[in-house]
Amino acid sequence: MANQLLSGKKGIIFGALDERSIAWKVALRAVEEGAEIVLSNAPVALRMGTIKELAAQCNNAPVIGADATSIPDLENLFNQATEHFGGKIDFVLHSIGMSPNVRKGFAYDGTNYDNFLKTLDISALSFHKVMQTAKKLDALNEWASVLALSYIAAQRTFPGYNDMGDAKALLESIARSFGYSYGFAKKVRVNTISQSPVPTTAGSGVAGFDGFYGYAEKMSPLGNASAADCANYCITLFSDLTRMVTMQNLFHDGGFSFTGVSEGVVERFNQ
Amino acid sequence: MANQLLSGKKGIIFGALDERSIAWKVALRAVEEGAEIVLSNAPVALRMGTIKELAAQCNNAPVIGADATSIPDLENLFNQATEHFGGKIDFVLHSIGMSPNVRKGFAYDGTNYDNFLKTLDISALSFHKVMQTAKKLDALNEWASVLALSYIAAQRTFPGYNDMGDAKALLESIARSFGYSYGFAKKVRVNTISQSPVPTTAGSGVAGFDGFYGYAEKMSPLGNASAADCANYCITLFSDLTRMVTMQNLFHDGGFSFTGVSEGVVERFNQ
Amino acid sequence: MANQLLSGKKGIIFGALDERSIAWKVALRAVEEGAEIVLSNAPVALRMGTIKELAAQCNNAPVIGADATSIPDLENLFNQATEHFGGKIDFVLHSIGMSPNVRKGFAYDGTNYDNFLKTLDISALSFHKVMQTAKKLDALNEWASVLALSYIAAQRTFPGYNDMGDAKALLESIARSFGYSYGFAKKVRVNTISQSPVPTTAGSGVAGFDGFYGYAEKMSPLGNASAADCANYCITLFSDLTRMVTMQNLFHDGGFSFTGVSEGVVERFNQ
Amino acid sequence: MANQLLSGKKGIIFGALDERSIAWKVALRAVEEGAEIVLSNAPVALRMGTIKELAAQCNNAPVIGADATSIPDLENLFNQATEHFGGKIDFVLHSIGMSPNVRKGFAYDGTNYDNFLKTLDISALSFHKVMQTAKKLDALNEWASVLALSYIAAQRTFPGYNDMGDAKALLESIARSFGYSYGFAKKVRVNTISQSPVPTTAGSGVAGFDGFYGYAEKMSPLGNASAADCANYCITLFSDLTRMVTMQNLFHDGGFSFTGVSEGVVERFNQ
Repeated sequence: MANQLLSGKKGIIFGALDERSIAWKVALRAVEEGAEIVLSNAPVALRMGTIKELAAQCNNAPVIGADATSIPDLENLFNQATEHFGGKIDFVLHSIGMSPNVRKGFAYDGTNYDNFLKTLDISALSFHKVMQTAKKLDALNEWASVLALSYIAAQRTFPGYNDMGDAKALLESIARSFGYSYGFAKKVRVNTISQSPVPTTAGSGVAGFDGFYGYAEKMSPLGNASAADCANYCITLFSDLTRMVTMQNLFHDGGFSFTGVSEGVVERFNQ
Repeated sequence: MANQLLSGKKGIIFGALDERSIAWKVALRAVEEGAEIVLSNAPVALRMGTIKELAAQCNNAPVIGADATSIPDLENLFNQATEHFGGKIDFVLHSIGMSPNVRKGFAYDGTNYDNFLKTLDISALSFHKVMQTAKKLDALNEWASVLALSYIAAQRTFPGYNDMGDAKALLESIARSFGYSYGFAKKVRVNTISQSPVPTTAGSGVAGFDGFYGYAEKMSPLGNASAADCANYCITLFSDLTRMVTMQNLFHDGGFSFTGVSEGVVERFNQ
Repeated sequence: MANQLLSGKKGIIFGALDERSIAWKVALRAVEEGAEIVLSNAPVALRMGTIKELAAQCNNAPVIGADATSIPDLENLFNQATEHFGGKIDFVLHSIGMSPNVRKGFAYDGTNYDNFLKTLDISALSFHKVMQTAKKLDALNEWASVLALSYIAAQRTFPGYNDMGDAKALLESIARSFGYSYGFAKKVRVNTISQSPVPTTAGSGVAGFDGFYGYAEKMSPLGNASAADCANYCITLFSDLTRMVTMQNLFHDGGFSFTGVSEGVVERFNQ
Repeated sequence: MANQLLSGKKGIIFGALDERSIAWKVALRAVEEGAEIVLSNAPVALRMGTIKELAAQCNNAPVIGADATSIPDLENLFNQATEHFGGKIDFVLHSIGMSPNVRKGFAYDGTNYDNFLKTLDISALSFHKVMQTAKKLDALNEWASVLALSYIAAQRTFPGYNDMGDAKALLESIARSFGYSYGFAKKVRVNTISQSPVPTTAGSGVAGFDGFYGYAEKMSPLGNASAADCANYCITLFSDLTRMVTMQNLFHDGGFSFTGVSEGVVERFNQ
């Protein structure tokens, strides 16, 4: 299914931990569509994961560690990436999120506020930092496409998702706010994809994930969208075919977002 | 709980069929809060229902039959009402909806288009007709409040709701469009309330209502809002305390609309 | 920019009047991307327009007249198209809208209700009719993509747009409702694109179009999206890369939809 | 216009600085409607403002200083308030917001991230802290109403609003998330009001406020809602008449939010 949609384009992909990661699939598909890429992840994730294997499959893409909450790290990343490419960047994928409250088992109404601020910094402000750094260094080409992965907990409450729901609401707001600024200044577009639940290493660790995954599957007319599907969708948003789409949150979820209830779900309440 | 919030106000209430109707409760509460009212319903509903009892409890409010899809009927109603009141009108409740496709068992994807147009005419265009007639006759006071009852099927698909979901989307759009026009012209405000499912005579006839009602109850942090609750909410929207609210669709549903999923619902998928 | 994204796919495109039409550009781009198409429009539009020229540029695509409000016409169209293709259909573009009230100068609050029902029938119910006919004839392949063009007047009031705003709200609701049904039944996806104003032959006839077009341009960080841009976006939505997107309304508008106000617009109020 | 709507109710009102403050008007109206209140503000604001005058007009309401980002301060406040009232609390108004970035003139795309985190902590997390503290101390009655003031920059970008737009998006998300939790646990409801721009001491200091205020006035069918209007609306949301409204963001803006453009605004682009 390769159509050379990203032929000649250069991109940075954040957040590929292992082969279950959405970012992993996006990296492979981007290369398949003709892009050159740089891979980045937090230093700790680089140690845990198997990103070297991915890099090998991506024409030996450079792997540049960066804590996405650190401006110096991001400056280093963008400088190295543009040097490597010998030019500016056309697309960025931000697939970064982590909640210390979820990890450590704090309930939403018994939250730890230091953790909460960390959730926001890692999962949302990092997106602002990526863009502010890129803009300051003038590292993106006109019409570049910047994309972050989000979740419908930004709009409605999903209890297991805890403070990540608030972080995603902030992330989507940052996409709008920075998209306004970057659009007028440099014709750069900024969007988020609100993706179905995916049994990634991160996702499937959440308590109650399986029940929730099954519920979402039954609620979605096309079923849950997979990581591979998401990668395909990202390709379209990096391509020149979607140049005028900006400041949007795009649901990629088999119809979950606009299904009030499905017959399959109601049946369980008729029994 | 009477606070004379509608003291001196005059209103028309459409759609009180029997004591389970939301409009019935609104009529009683409006009178309790000091309003004078006129009751209206379709001629056929007047014959079936027990609206005379309601009129008696509402200080002998006049009952004026009107098919809300008929301009002459609406003109007659507004003329009689303003004559009865000796002045203009301060609030209107539109609680009107009917789908011949639902009644006759046509599936949404095997619809009958004459029926579909009737659903739209009865359930949505009637709201436009009420307002256009009132405006032409200059029958409403400045800052009058016009309200229609809607349902969240306007935003998301609820399969049993059939073409009524589309009708509610149209109804809410008409509220915005006419609210714009009536606001600039006469300072009249127009809103819809998106109400929890209620086991009215109309509602509880829908196939699968019980399963759906139970699902909504489990999904709503405060439970489903009752017809009596809805009547209280309508009172606030008819009062002078909400003068600057217009062109809105207001969810009155115990939190259903912004709950992605509840723990109680997920549990059924973990079993 | 041709990437053979629609290689082997077969589609029907409604609504190409002349070379300024969005549907015209979509037809050309679809063929460029490897699709075979059938063109359709209302008999009167076929007479007025220059669709034969377009057909010639599209590998002599058949032109099949159909009043999209007529079930027999639609049945004939789908039967002829599948016969022509020797197989089922993969994508459909619905670019159909007309308001007799706008044409004849009726104000929104002085509407003619026969006209209003016609606006709804032509501009919204026709989309339901297209899908119901396709489904009854089993004319679409699994994962087919059905798309209609909409406008942000579905969400907010734009006074010159008159009853077309209500029609677009209904159209988008039908996309959700039928998308639910068609998704569960046949894995067919249904979406609408909410497009920037475009100076088509239809659009530019609206009173005040130029002032509004300039306002939208000033409000949109990337400027107004053109018909050519829209055609590119449609290609992505017909392709297999967006298989899990359904029941969505997708803004394609340079960021207009999420810009509250721009500095350029505020300046005019500071003078 | 006093109707004793809050007769017997007890509330805490945060954020009354001077007589132009929305919170100031809410305090006066709440007392007029029969409530007993406690006033709170940050220690620095207590020194700058004239809250003692307000307290005197509110039946000598206690004024208890609290930095709303400090859990010990909030615990002290709730403990003192419930002791003063001799019982639990029925309503809370959160009218708190401040952006060091706006104050110090940092542009949105040249933000200072320490400032940004402070904006979020002061303007959004403080709302979570108020509720978490109240819940831990079991300081609210069942059916209590918790309300925060927001702004439409949470949904769409308004450039002068800077990082406060993101903070409001986070605030509204927290209202939903905590509303879910508090609703199921204690039948407490949580909402935000999205208010028209108001020339308060805080608001009118923003650069370009006047131009924006004039734009909003021209865009709103009923004009901008005033602080006094907002106070009235808050009263309805504190009252028992709106018990089933929760997790909502309620636009109180004369129709601004659903007006795409007004004739008055387009005229400026036709000249």
